[in-house]
Amino acid sequence: MLPYNLDHVAIAVHDLDEAITRFGAQYGVTPIHREVVVEQGVEEAMLPIGGSFVQLLQPLDPETAVGRFLERRGEGLHHIAFAVPDIEAALDHLAKQGVRLVDESPRPGGGGARIAFVHPKELAGTLIELVEPAP
Amino acid sequence: MLPYNLDHVAIAVHDLDEAITRFGAQYGVTPIHREVVVEQGVEEAMLPIGGSFVQLLQPLDPETAVGRFLERRGEGLHHIAFAVPDIEAALDHLAKQGVRLVDESPRPGGGGARIAFVHPKELAGTLIELVEPAP
Repeated sequence: MLPYNLDHVAIAVHDLDEAITRFGAQYGVTPIHREVVVEQGVEEAMLPIGGSFVQLLQPLDPETAVGRFLERRGEGLHHIAFAVPDIEAALDHLAKQGVRLVDESPRPGGGGARIAFVHPKELAGTLIELVEPAP
Repeated sequence: MLPYNLDHVAIAVHDLDEAITRFGAQYGVTPIHREVVVEQGVEEAMLPIGGSFVQLLQPLDPETAVGRFLERRGEGLHHIAFAVPDIEAALDHLAKQGVRLVDESPRPGGGGARIAFVHPKELAGTLIELVEPAP
């Protein structure tokens, strides 16, 4: 069950436009995709760097997972995402080891991907997302 | 000054061996490099995923930057690193915009790289490392 790519690193921000402007000025990186993902309570922007992305996440509401993260910890790194070829197989592999899953089955992510989160207590306090990109 | 790769994502851990074991069991990923970097007060392990790495960082002492991070926030995502072709040019570009740098000139990193950190206040609370890999 090897992930074949570090798909993205997600950063929680208060102001998506300001974060995009800063990324552009400091690193010359601009979004190739921007989308409201209602299921996750965020507006997200994807900034390509090499074969990976920085994903900026602005909550749609304070009472969302990312809104509560910002309230508790402030802006900063939120999760990392591993691309996998078969998300059901990956979840099955983890579940068989007793790894606690946030999502026991895949749900829709941005860009038509199928995603699932693994509980941060399972791996060094790090929230990990599995991503099976759209075909 | 485009970074050409998301070089790595770093995770601060209490116990490097335990984190490596968990990464292996859950994701089938194993370190290709392990090194004590005295200048940064850490022992680090590099786990390849696609063209990037997860870098696990265990502090050598509680009174190091990573030791204080663990005391304050617990295990979790610590910083992200962008690979750049010319680290002096990148630092010069940032300094000209008034971006606050942790390191005004490059210092030695793991694997013979030259590295420098940019202050997290400059970009959404995110500590960013610039890496010019060894030739």
